[in-house]
Amino acid sequence: MIIAVDAMGGDFSPQATVQGSIDALKRSNKELDIILLGDEKRINNILKSEFPKNIKIVHCIDEVTMHDIGSKILRTKPESSMVRGIKLLKDDKADAFISAGNTGAQLAASRLILGKISHVKRPGLAVYFQALNEKKILCDVGANLEVKPEHLLQFAIMSSVYLYHVEGVKNPKIGLINIGEEPNKGTEIHQQAYELLSKELSNFIGNIESRNFFDSQAHVLVCDGFVGNTMMKFAEGCFTTFTEMVRNNIMSKARYKIGAGMIKPALDALRPYYDFEEHGGTPFLGVNGISISCHGASTAKAIMNSIFLAEKSIRKNLTNDISIGIDKHLGAIS
Amino acid sequence: MIIAVDAMGGDFSPQATVQGSIDALKRSNKELDIILLGDEKRINNILKSEFPKNIKIVHCIDEVTMHDIGSKILRTKPESSMVRGIKLLKDDKADAFISAGNTGAQLAASRLILGKISHVKRPGLAVYFQALNEKKILCDVGANLEVKPEHLLQFAIMSSVYLYHVEGVKNPKIGLINIGEEPNKGTEIHQQAYELLSKELSNFIGNIESRNFFDSQAHVLVCDGFVGNTMMKFAEGCFTTFTEMVRNNIMSKARYKIGAGMIKPALDALRPYYDFEEHGGTPFLGVNGISISCHGASTAKAIMNSIFLAEKSIRKNLTNDISIGIDKHLGAIS
Repeated sequence: MIIAVDAMGGDFSPQATVQGSIDALKRSNKELDIILLGDEKRINNILKSEFPKNIKIVHCIDEVTMHDIGSKILRTKPESSMVRGIKLLKDDKADAFISAGNTGAQLAASRLILGKISHVKRPGLAVYFQALNEKKILCDVGANLEVKPEHLLQFAIMSSVYLYHVEGVKNPKIGLINIGEEPNKGTEIHQQAYELLSKELSNFIGNIESRNFFDSQAHVLVCDGFVGNTMMKFAEGCFTTFTEMVRNNIMSKARYKIGAGMIKPALDALRPYYDFEEHGGTPFLGVNGISISCHGASTAKAIMNSIFLAEKSIRKNLTNDISIGIDKHLGAIS
Repeated sequence: MIIAVDAMGGDFSPQATVQGSIDALKRSNKELDIILLGDEKRINNILKSEFPKNIKIVHCIDEVTMHDIGSKILRTKPESSMVRGIKLLKDDKADAFISAGNTGAQLAASRLILGKISHVKRPGLAVYFQALNEKKILCDVGANLEVKPEHLLQFAIMSSVYLYHVEGVKNPKIGLINIGEEPNKGTEIHQQAYELLSKELSNFIGNIESRNFFDSQAHVLVCDGFVGNTMMKFAEGCFTTFTEMVRNNIMSKARYKIGAGMIKPALDALRPYYDFEEHGGTPFLGVNGISISCHGASTAKAIMNSIFLAEKSIRKNLTNDISIGIDKHLGAIS
């Protein structure tokens, strides 16, 4: 399989993207080819002598920045590594595309170039959360700020397929983020969504309040993109503040410091709770092709993990399985 | 001044409500009278011999439960401690009302009996957050699931008056919870709100992403009630999960345990971050009278703190100052 990597996307590119690709090739036991898109000279400087035979470079004279407006890049930056990478996917010259660049631009370009999977109303952006003993998926986290009940249903279906593929969770339980547990809670959209999800999904377990996000039974939690984006970033804020305050308090007294040294590994273990890089990226669920968006601050490790994720998604035929899942519930979608 | 307390509201009532009232009377250096509304016999059992002379009981044969629907309690439970307490406030027989009971019911009854302060479009529910070195207010946290820009403007004004009264923060800085910092982020409502707040409030500092909630410069943060309620409860979920995970990790190894004992006070100091009881309740901002809603799990200490909060709000004339603040920006409200 062939994976196209946007070498120019992300805070640490092209160093992290190129190094992550080298590492993935070294560790993968699958037949894997990587196409690096970007400035050939800069990429070559990093590859140097260890140029792996399974890497190919596609030189691009332009790149998408964080200031570019998503819906315009096809026109303004047709020669960028991002646009050209997604076109490789469209033209069947790659099986997946990965970028740590501008998420909004990647989503817009993926939608425009690849199109949506048949009958998908709105592609969704999902993110992993590490709960005590398992991973959870929250969807949508920013692709759709306002949603209809049928969009939430499709997010649930697409996320379930994805979680099964990647984590092997069979029939993941679905929850709807709401401000109370009763079916009549929330806005009209939430009330209608509760009804629709109850009717369509046998594994829908009802409304989940955000305070129970981590310890609820639900594996997949759906919400609109404004709420999801706010939760994703607030988790980061809470955990960062929490560790900072623990650290401040600990440093205030000598005997705490000794204790702190002793429990440092326990605190370090909290990292996966809010460090979204560890998980690699997530694909835009519902676009017609595997286009994976990584955190802007992705390290080489995060890029490598995203390549493995792409490999898995290709192998398990994510796009096709999402399509089958969506088609099962067509009757519920107006 | 006279403060009416719903003795029957909250998980630990009437024990916590009665004890909290006794404690407040003992510690207050102000001239203070308390009216306890509820089952006279049960209240007397707690007061026993130490019946303070500044306490009066108003016997009520009914009480509002968590299952009651807010908009209906005036009709279904006119003799409840909650409805009768708010009526005391309306009839100038009390200067403030406090309850740890059903928040939705208290809000509805307060709106219906007391009405709104002139020109207030929507009363808001605010909550305190403890940040590293200061308290922040988030409004709305559930009274209005959908809002217009003018509601957000009024939440900002009312919360600012409140924060100045209670914490002495002059000209608190205002932030708008959004998914990005740029003015064009969020839904149309957010974009319009950004514009309106920029125009009307000299101390508006722009959009704040939830990841920066705790370390931003803003003292008052406004959002719709769905997002605010989700954030409030998610903070609780994150901090609870965090401490639990630290604890689990610590208990897994003997040498961690020793360290843990040493840093326990540092962990305990995190409690105010997510323990909303500590702060006492908050008044419904914008209703025509001081009606304070406390957390359902309020302890005697939380009730006592809420009584002190009521005292301060009466003394500083919260209702009047909110009215002045609102009137200043009347031109901006359609």
